[in-house]
Amino acid sequence: MKTDMTIDWDDDESCIVFIDQTLLPGDCRTVRCRDTDRLARAVMRLEIRGAPALGVAGAYGVALAAVTSRQEDLADLLQEVASAAESLKKTRPTAVNLAWGIDRVMERVRGAQDAGDVRRIALAEAKAIAAEDLETCLAIGRHGAGLLPDRCTVLTHCNAGALACTAWGTALGVIRSAAGMGKEVRVVACETRPLHQGSRLTAWELSRDGVDVTVITDSSSAAMMREGEIDLVITGADRITRDAVFNKIGTYMHAVCAHHHGIPFYVAAPFSTFDLSEGERDVVIEMRGRDEIAFCGEKQLVPDGVEVRNPAFDATPLSLVTAVITEEGVISPPFTHHTSPEGEVFKHVTSGDSVTARRPVTHRLKTGVHHTLPSG
Amino acid sequence: MKTDMTIDWDDDESCIVFIDQTLLPGDCRTVRCRDTDRLARAVMRLEIRGAPALGVAGAYGVALAAVTSRQEDLADLLQEVASAAESLKKTRPTAVNLAWGIDRVMERVRGAQDAGDVRRIALAEAKAIAAEDLETCLAIGRHGAGLLPDRCTVLTHCNAGALACTAWGTALGVIRSAAGMGKEVRVVACETRPLHQGSRLTAWELSRDGVDVTVITDSSSAAMMREGEIDLVITGADRITRDAVFNKIGTYMHAVCAHHHGIPFYVAAPFSTFDLSEGERDVVIEMRGRDEIAFCGEKQLVPDGVEVRNPAFDATPLSLVTAVITEEGVISPPFTHHTSPEGEVFKHVTSGDSVTARRPVTHRLKTGVHHTLPSG
Repeated sequence: MKTDMTIDWDDDESCIVFIDQTLLPGDCRTVRCRDTDRLARAVMRLEIRGAPALGVAGAYGVALAAVTSRQEDLADLLQEVASAAESLKKTRPTAVNLAWGIDRVMERVRGAQDAGDVRRIALAEAKAIAAEDLETCLAIGRHGAGLLPDRCTVLTHCNAGALACTAWGTALGVIRSAAGMGKEVRVVACETRPLHQGSRLTAWELSRDGVDVTVITDSSSAAMMREGEIDLVITGADRITRDAVFNKIGTYMHAVCAHHHGIPFYVAAPFSTFDLSEGERDVVIEMRGRDEIAFCGEKQLVPDGVEVRNPAFDATPLSLVTAVITEEGVISPPFTHHTSPEGEVFKHVTSGDSVTARRPVTHRLKTGVHHTLPSG
Repeated sequence: MKTDMTIDWDDDESCIVFIDQTLLPGDCRTVRCRDTDRLARAVMRLEIRGAPALGVAGAYGVALAAVTSRQEDLADLLQEVASAAESLKKTRPTAVNLAWGIDRVMERVRGAQDAGDVRRIALAEAKAIAAEDLETCLAIGRHGAGLLPDRCTVLTHCNAGALACTAWGTALGVIRSAAGMGKEVRVVACETRPLHQGSRLTAWELSRDGVDVTVITDSSSAAMMREGEIDLVITGADRITRDAVFNKIGTYMHAVCAHHHGIPFYVAAPFSTFDLSEGERDVVIEMRGRDEIAFCGEKQLVPDGVEVRNPAFDATPLSLVTAVITEEGVISPPFTHHTSPEGEVFKHVTSGDSVTARRPVTHRLKTGVHHTLPSG
């Protein structure tokens, strides 16, 4: 399988290197990003997208701000870096991982002794986050692969793949791991309007890996489910609150249709995606621009003056989610928030096709808040 | 309200005139069509589309074949016209109205005395079909308008509007009639991938008429339903069998989601759309080309070599359909086929907001087959 890194650090040139995903599938071009304004634009334009990749982008963004600053005074440098961090955070307010990656590096650099220390710590922490992301994806893949029958067709929406992470992927990581175990997995990729992350990105990376993938329009999934052509659904998540999964617009529609047809609906996501201190009502869904729907390239699709409603995400209540595949195992809702600093996390741990063990473990969610995830 | 005719006959030039719907919303251009090959191409390319408009196109197509033929021998002319009719029918095999319009004119011309008679009869019958289509739409609008609350938001998919008929429309005819009664109707138009009939056509014709219309991606409808922003769904139909409504791909998904949220799901369609002699399993769904999904204008959306599945229609079982709004009244499933030549049609007849009377009436479906439609 190919090992392009979606986002990485270039030590020689002290800059971020990323694949510009807006040019795929026609053109696979990497960008060398030398300042945080360019990074902010990349995040806003979705050149970099996907929850885990945004966490890594946020972390490398803080490192880049530190490394490129001319400030030599510790306090001045920290202030400049903090200011860049705040600007970066505002680019995608619903994507909790972006803020998480930024905050994790910011927390570490506050213990620095001098400006050089800030730069070293920031870069080391960002690289650690990137390395953990790959490990996390491999663990998600391993845990999730057991859920897939030996021969099956998986429906997925948007791109929760290598291109949404540093590599391997979450939802597509499960598919890669299952394929690696010798399972015969076909994938149906919903094109994912309006930005076509499914047809452009998921189809691109899976076909490069030799996985059998077919693209459909988003609204075709229900009809395929009714025909018995879909065995299960796996999507990623941008944010998981105590009552809902926030993911690319359309995810809720697939969840409703999967429920109607008795098809399992899985979400593959690292713990950094969880924010159990919040409920669905606390989350403001990002509304994106009119032109993403009104135009496709040069082609006009909506008459001038007609209103367009373009939410980036929707919320799927946990009642429609069969289970969440995490790096620690497969866990089933409901998830409840526990404020105890030593709160325990209960998880379903799967082995093979079914839930085989439940054990309480202590787990510090990477948001830094302790949560209890009782077995459902 | 504007009165452009979507498809019409030009007596001066003895040709069909139609709006090329592939150019909307950027350009509203009419085409003068002088031979049936051009008409066949227009039907295949969806320059003309929509069930009722296809019925009129089929009828005018037979008239055009008769009028433009140089055959003066009655038998030769009939054979040439029949051959053109068969070719036209093959362009959109799932669209029952196309064949219905063709067959209705063909049936009439078989009684002609000479070649001139064939031409006169064919043109007169085609014009009668076009006139009936407008009357039918106005009647559908009148019957359906009573179902809408005084203030409401209607979700619609694809274009079952003036552009799908000669004028006024079926689903959008209901909305026009309700607006004409002073009701405050907002419309949410699903863009309708892959050919964007919702964002290009529905939004265009409604905004020209001053109706408040908002365009969304197809997969956003479920989230809006969950937020309580949709009061009812009205779509058109390409074909109604005794067990299912065939309509633009995506219709089934909206029906499942409407059912999940307890929202009424109406279909607005003339009796010519019914084919109760058939069941869902008898209908072969037209698979359309890869490029409709793989490209949008010049923009490539799917990697080379990746498979695409592009069905034109899906089937919604009648169990998910609240009622069908026809030119004779609002009828509820189930519909059953009755072979008696004098079979009665039972209908729900609505007045105002609710079903107020049920009366058995004798009605000859325009397919020429007698059916019984018992109250459900």
